[in-house]
Amino acid sequence: MSRRRPGDRLADVGELGLLAELERRGLTVDVEHDAALLSGGLVVTQDALVEGVHFQLDWISWRDLGYKAAAVNISDLAASAAEPEALIVSLGLPPATLVADVVELYEGIAEAGVPVRGGDTTSADRAYLSVTALGHSVHVPGRGGARPGDLVVVTGPLGASGAGLLCLEAGRRDDPAAAALVRAHNRPPLRLAEGRALGAVATALMDISDGLATDAGHIARRSGCHLAIELARVPVADGVAEVAAGAGRTRWELACAFGEDYELLATVPPEAPLPPGCVVIGRCEAGQGAVFLDAAGREVVLHGWEHFR
Amino acid sequence: MSRRRPGDRLADVGELGLLAELERRGLTVDVEHDAALLSGGLVVTQDALVEGVHFQLDWISWRDLGYKAAAVNISDLAASAAEPEALIVSLGLPPATLVADVVELYEGIAEAGVPVRGGDTTSADRAYLSVTALGHSVHVPGRGGARPGDLVVVTGPLGASGAGLLCLEAGRRDDPAAAALVRAHNRPPLRLAEGRALGAVATALMDISDGLATDAGHIARRSGCHLAIELARVPVADGVAEVAAGAGRTRWELACAFGEDYELLATVPPEAPLPPGCVVIGRCEAGQGAVFLDAAGREVVLHGWEHFR
Repeated sequence: MSRRRPGDRLADVGELGLLAELERRGLTVDVEHDAALLSGGLVVTQDALVEGVHFQLDWISWRDLGYKAAAVNISDLAASAAEPEALIVSLGLPPATLVADVVELYEGIAEAGVPVRGGDTTSADRAYLSVTALGHSVHVPGRGGARPGDLVVVTGPLGASGAGLLCLEAGRRDDPAAAALVRAHNRPPLRLAEGRALGAVATALMDISDGLATDAGHIARRSGCHLAIELARVPVADGVAEVAAGAGRTRWELACAFGEDYELLATVPPEAPLPPGCVVIGRCEAGQGAVFLDAAGREVVLHGWEHFR
Repeated sequence: MSRRRPGDRLADVGELGLLAELERRGLTVDVEHDAALLSGGLVVTQDALVEGVHFQLDWISWRDLGYKAAAVNISDLAASAAEPEALIVSLGLPPATLVADVVELYEGIAEAGVPVRGGDTTSADRAYLSVTALGHSVHVPGRGGARPGDLVVVTGPLGASGAGLLCLEAGRRDDPAAAALVRAHNRPPLRLAEGRALGAVATALMDISDGLATDAGHIARRSGCHLAIELARVPVADGVAEVAAGAGRTRWELACAFGEDYELLATVPPEAPLPPGCVVIGRCEAGQGAVFLDAAGREVVLHGWEHFR
């Protein structure tokens, strides 16, 4: 007879609890970072996309799937202020897959602009892609350097990816009114230039993959300070409010708590020059945690997405 | 109405046909190598293991799964004559997974001896691991340098992994007589020292993952020469003959055509000193293709495993 206690399962401890447990045992080092920083300024990142888990082939074209698999990894290089060098692509595909579809997939990868320099293909009963991106960075700000007084900035409007996913779930893949949102979900932005510009001034830098609420919380915890974000200053992508209303949600839930926008989030000293395209959304203060404030300065609770919970 | 011609699907063209097509279109470069060789002697390799495709959790412990995911990537570093530096581990797991199992998985990875320096964990409906291994090499022999007169060598006995898989398929996971074979399947050898020693003398070097028949064919094709392998000289692991007989196969099918042994295969000039542990199994000649010869010098046909076919 086996008896399970709370905390036994990933659903109990969450992704952050698991990472803390592995690090406590010395089994991993710094896996919470966007990318691993190795000797010589080498930055390495890896993400896998599995059919039925991360994508559905009736929601995304092969070309867009290739682009997205490349882009989410390139985003981690951008968050490391890196110059990209190469992609390694491992691919698993059912034998009945059309060669023309695989060629489209690779053309989508190529559109992201970083050359494929290696990889592997195997047969599999469902499609998966695992991409490793490599680059070089002269300085990786990381997540632990934010200081009271720093400004909190993002590189672009949020919420389009989440709204696009809601449109796909609602069967609106071919609805012209949803096209820009679906495209935002399937073809994340590449913020390499913004990342390198922020790398020169930011005290903390990461990409927004789990949602602004969760990701701002990462910087707050690693930096030991408090991030106060003014909702009215958070840029929300066009069309997000309408989709949110139709789904019984607020625009802020999609813009701040949904994730997969792949814009960059940074903290920057107030005296530093702000790179082009950056929007100030809040300020670092003494304290802990990240909060959202409405126009009256009242806290608004928005939960981000944490895996396993 | 869509009409499909032969050659339209991966099953028609095979892995090699796909790679040739992608390379012809300039979409990939040299992805047939064991690992990507980047600037500064950096060697990068990546392999994914997906539940139900590459492993079944009732056939392998979490600890062995971690070890194997690390080992198959470290094997590609060995085949590049590299000194390993770091692993990046991306993990997808169902939320109901026990934390203790994930800790065991990482302990298994740690047993392979290369530190985990980054990665990512996400929730998924079936388990997957994608591992990137990084190292440095002063010289990667590759697959294209074999010359007539070179000796063909392997670093150890073959067939145990395939025999172990047959035992698992037959429900013999806990059969003591099958233990060493199952262990060979679940915990591939690490041939890093042998790889570096061979790197100093070999004209071609790779690891045996798809089976000796297929992998010797890779060297023959890339090098533009003929590999003649004498079956009687191929070392076969203990217990393989019995399992083969029980399955209505020959020991040579398991040793030469099954794959996943992860020993190294190399060609070495006859005057070069042979590193310890290497066994000569044949010779390179003018011509093309790889063949197996019986004691009378007659060709024996043994097909290797090619993905998608």
